[in-house]
Amino acid sequence: MKKLFNLVAVIFALCSVSAPTFAEAAVSEEGQYIFNSLAFYIGGVLVAFMAAGFCMLESGLVTNKSVSTIAAKNIGKFALCSIIFFLFGYQMAYGIPEGGYIGSFSMWSEGSKISTGYSDSSDWFFQTMFVCATVSIVSGAVAERIKIWPFFVFAIIMSGFIYPISMGWQWGGGWLASAGFSDFAGSTLVHACGGAAALAGVIVLGARAGRFTGSGSKRVMVPFAASSIPLTTLGTFLLWFGWFGFNGMSQLAMGTFDDVTAISKIAVNTHLAGAAGTFAGAAVSRLIGGKTDVIMMLNGALAGLVAITAEPLTPSPLAAIFIGAIGAIIMYFGTKMLEGFGLDDVVGAIPVHMFAGIFGTLIVPATNSETSFGTQFIGTLSVVLFSFVLSYAVFVALKATIGLRVSKEAERLGTDKAEIGVQAYAIRD
Amino acid sequence: MKKLFNLVAVIFALCSVSAPTFAEAAVSEEGQYIFNSLAFYIGGVLVAFMAAGFCMLESGLVTNKSVSTIAAKNIGKFALCSIIFFLFGYQMAYGIPEGGYIGSFSMWSEGSKISTGYSDSSDWFFQTMFVCATVSIVSGAVAERIKIWPFFVFAIIMSGFIYPISMGWQWGGGWLASAGFSDFAGSTLVHACGGAAALAGVIVLGARAGRFTGSGSKRVMVPFAASSIPLTTLGTFLLWFGWFGFNGMSQLAMGTFDDVTAISKIAVNTHLAGAAGTFAGAAVSRLIGGKTDVIMMLNGALAGLVAITAEPLTPSPLAAIFIGAIGAIIMYFGTKMLEGFGLDDVVGAIPVHMFAGIFGTLIVPATNSETSFGTQFIGTLSVVLFSFVLSYAVFVALKATIGLRVSKEAERLGTDKAEIGVQAYAIRD
Amino acid sequence: MKKLFNLVAVIFALCSVSAPTFAEAAVSEEGQYIFNSLAFYIGGVLVAFMAAGFCMLESGLVTNKSVSTIAAKNIGKFALCSIIFFLFGYQMAYGIPEGGYIGSFSMWSEGSKISTGYSDSSDWFFQTMFVCATVSIVSGAVAERIKIWPFFVFAIIMSGFIYPISMGWQWGGGWLASAGFSDFAGSTLVHACGGAAALAGVIVLGARAGRFTGSGSKRVMVPFAASSIPLTTLGTFLLWFGWFGFNGMSQLAMGTFDDVTAISKIAVNTHLAGAAGTFAGAAVSRLIGGKTDVIMMLNGALAGLVAITAEPLTPSPLAAIFIGAIGAIIMYFGTKMLEGFGLDDVVGAIPVHMFAGIFGTLIVPATNSETSFGTQFIGTLSVVLFSFVLSYAVFVALKATIGLRVSKEAERLGTDKAEIGVQAYAIRD
Repeated sequence: MKKLFNLVAVIFALCSVSAPTFAEAAVSEEGQYIFNSLAFYIGGVLVAFMAAGFCMLESGLVTNKSVSTIAAKNIGKFALCSIIFFLFGYQMAYGIPEGGYIGSFSMWSEGSKISTGYSDSSDWFFQTMFVCATVSIVSGAVAERIKIWPFFVFAIIMSGFIYPISMGWQWGGGWLASAGFSDFAGSTLVHACGGAAALAGVIVLGARAGRFTGSGSKRVMVPFAASSIPLTTLGTFLLWFGWFGFNGMSQLAMGTFDDVTAISKIAVNTHLAGAAGTFAGAAVSRLIGGKTDVIMMLNGALAGLVAITAEPLTPSPLAAIFIGAIGAIIMYFGTKMLEGFGLDDVVGAIPVHMFAGIFGTLIVPATNSETSFGTQFIGTLSVVLFSFVLSYAVFVALKATIGLRVSKEAERLGTDKAEIGVQAYAIRD
Repeated sequence: MKKLFNLVAVIFALCSVSAPTFAEAAVSEEGQYIFNSLAFYIGGVLVAFMAAGFCMLESGLVTNKSVSTIAAKNIGKFALCSIIFFLFGYQMAYGIPEGGYIGSFSMWSEGSKISTGYSDSSDWFFQTMFVCATVSIVSGAVAERIKIWPFFVFAIIMSGFIYPISMGWQWGGGWLASAGFSDFAGSTLVHACGGAAALAGVIVLGARAGRFTGSGSKRVMVPFAASSIPLTTLGTFLLWFGWFGFNGMSQLAMGTFDDVTAISKIAVNTHLAGAAGTFAGAAVSRLIGGKTDVIMMLNGALAGLVAITAEPLTPSPLAAIFIGAIGAIIMYFGTKMLEGFGLDDVVGAIPVHMFAGIFGTLIVPATNSETSFGTQFIGTLSVVLFSFVLSYAVFVALKATIGLRVSKEAERLGTDKAEIGVQAYAIRD
Repeated sequence: MKKLFNLVAVIFALCSVSAPTFAEAAVSEEGQYIFNSLAFYIGGVLVAFMAAGFCMLESGLVTNKSVSTIAAKNIGKFALCSIIFFLFGYQMAYGIPEGGYIGSFSMWSEGSKISTGYSDSSDWFFQTMFVCATVSIVSGAVAERIKIWPFFVFAIIMSGFIYPISMGWQWGGGWLASAGFSDFAGSTLVHACGGAAALAGVIVLGARAGRFTGSGSKRVMVPFAASSIPLTTLGTFLLWFGWFGFNGMSQLAMGTFDDVTAISKIAVNTHLAGAAGTFAGAAVSRLIGGKTDVIMMLNGALAGLVAITAEPLTPSPLAAIFIGAIGAIIMYFGTKMLEGFGLDDVVGAIPVHMFAGIFGTLIVPATNSETSFGTQFIGTLSVVLFSFVLSYAVFVALKATIGLRVSKEAERLGTDKAEIGVQAYAIRD
């Protein structure tokens, strides 16, 4: 009987130990799987909103005669890049051997196990929205003179090869990851990569007819009227909100105290960097240009968001504010520099995504002691050069074969009439 | 002593079994309740975005003189359908006896219990957004000539009776559910149902003045300029993103490995079907019409999304791509067919929602072996006929009593001036 | 052996008891922390959408020559208010002593502990979006004649002092909370507070040139054409959806059965109040003015949403419908009253946010027996007076120093040309 009592005591002791352990216990494996998959789902939906954001931003900034084309390019690219990333882009990036250079050419497939920690599908869903964002960056820069189908061909190559390969170097566990490069959500892997491709496109295509008069030091940019500032503003807001998923859910997990705390801190830093970029854009344009240029505010917001993307977790909020503001200032002067070179980047994609993206990646060691400037420099340079050179080659090849630029007559008429056959606005007083 | 040892061994054995069981344990009942309610909440918010999506899509596609009316109809319908669905629509659908034909006429009420597995309110919230979507489909088709208050009367009848009754046959556990019909998120119960009502409205109302010249084989459609393609594009994007909630959260649970994995897979298939529909719309319009018609791309996206809605879980991603593409092709030829018949569906609601919806429901047995073509056919036919006949009767009754169509003078002026008193745009260069 | 049997029986008995206990167990402390932080994250993102909503609503309602300015003001204010709320607004509100009047002047800092129940960052993220909403209310009312930088100065003072101080009286645990005041998500603390500041601004600034002819009883309002009704409608939809986060996540927790059930019920009541407000706006404008005024429907929706915000949990859905409808009716007559006084509130911010907000707060005791009309009255009056008097003083001080209103010439040209240098639309047929 005493033995029985002792045993019962042992049992209760075990229970009384396990009860508090239970209440404070880590979320169960299945619970974590659900939280993590949900994080990817929410993140994917938010980053999807960035596709609409890019489309509205670009629709508003192009002239009135190219708006339907922008719409067609944006939704078409959203569709094509997703299919291509399913067919081979994903495996090209994530099928890379450890420390390697290129993944495998095969179709993505689902095989969720609870031990993976998240649903494979939710991961694919999230990552796919990133490739769509990358190609969106190109779309705006080359607007109003690129033919739509050659653009789609470029989008296929970008989403199936260029972006996945250099992204896989880091996020797929390739050579950059082995080298200690750090780019949390893609200041370089997404933004500078997309921006470099945009730069290649802008160079190969040349400027829109009438965009510049004179040349060299006498070159003057002719302002082209943006079709709708409120749509551009809406687009910027949508991009900003999408960034909460873009950066936040790049934590890639939500099922622990540490992960959800990190996601929250990332949301704060991301928001403050965007805020600081907006203010810097307003201040710089007011001080230098005399007017509070709303386009510089909007692109300032985006440049701030791009700059914080490489490392949204380790900076203090105050540091995030500085990073965002500097990103916007770099964007401002970068915009002027491109104009000086006679490069016609319709929406400012290169200064926003490439210039602020490079800055954001190089500044990581200032707040993250596990990184080094040298490695950041090598990583950024490699990705930017890779994207620029390959994109340049693809654009040149397209130009030499199926043609890249619409005819002069089509450009005069506008691509909406020439290529799409649908006028964008029919609005009278 | 040996017995004691044995017993302790048994206890530890039990513990060592239960320890991993614990880590791998199912999420607790309360945890599941929270996850499931959260799924409905997130789904409800995303499907709510579809109301804005429909409004933007329709605002952009109507001519300049009917845009304020579209806005008023869309937000008014969003409001009215919600109130009506609370007052009796919900119980009309879900108060149906097992295998039955019609629910009860009573108000929805809350009574959440943890054992139900989710909050009643979150379920109502989610389901309400579906009825709003259904009635939105009608709104665009009959635009520019229907009077606003008769439209609101129709919206009340549709959200209180027509939609809830046929939807209850399946989702309320009525006779179609008993018969083995399968329609995961509503290709038929929502989309074909709404599309059939739209068809009835379009027939009873007749075409807009000046839409067609000639008749029979000499009938020619006169193009009417869409007021804003970027708003239509925005609307399509919002609908697309809303579909991640529409289809994903129709899993109706998120608190287990299986459920969240299903939601994720549904998101992937839904996205790829929309992508394939977009591309198919671009390709078909370019190959047949010569131009890459952006409206066919947008409606192609929606047709792809509608087609996958009946079964977004069982198809492989590759199958989802085919289903989406075929949906868009059906939409394209359906649009031409309606034009040939002299039917004036302003936004293409009938080919997108009814034609692609019917296709999507009939194709379910191709990937889901638990369904049969015969049952799918019976279910689709029943719902479409029920919706068409009742809607037709209601429209005819409205026409005979309070009137359905605005006067010729009001149509010439535009309903914005005649009925709303607010001009949609005041935009000058 | 029998003892062994008994013990095993005891063990199994314990297990069979603990098994259901386990399944019904409360979510673990870490699980709750994740759910609660996620609630703030989702809520923050949804309320962020309200910033875009306000921007679209205001862009659409101002005349064509002030749209770029509205865009610049809205994104600039979103940025500035966030930075200021980080630098000192948050601590001004939440650093208040219990029962006190004012918090401390210090920077927000993160220090998440699992025992707090949620991530500090997620809380800051959510609360920051509220201050942005509050200042947005002012932006629309004073549009088309306020200088942009003085507006930014006001935004800084509003987000750093005025709003945080009176909000802290309640949500920071100050004297109003001690007195038993109740304002769940801010009918008074956010909406009436912002509306009172807007009233001060409208009075100090005076009406737009040409807005009224005659004076006193012969005063006639001249209609100014809204630039884009679809954008205003989109803005209203975005605000509506944002409100699901605004009210729902003001539950401040999601990790228990009770909390998620409350969030769901709040979503239902919020939605139905907005729906009833929309319908009431349609009905009243149709019955009194003869036309179904879409602007009154949109502002009706918002007034309904504002009215339910003070108490979205205790009313039955039917009560929520009545509260929303009455809110809209108050908005309608409040709009006419302001016009009668010659006050030029460009977007109707004062009737929507201040009048419906006061009503919503005063009606709380009708459904929440733990509140009293007297306390509600004192709380509402205190906050409204505090906000009005301080805002009035700030506007007068700005007018006397750096100037508040643009020159007559700038107003004639439009602030888009005079201050921003970017024309909002370049849309031709």
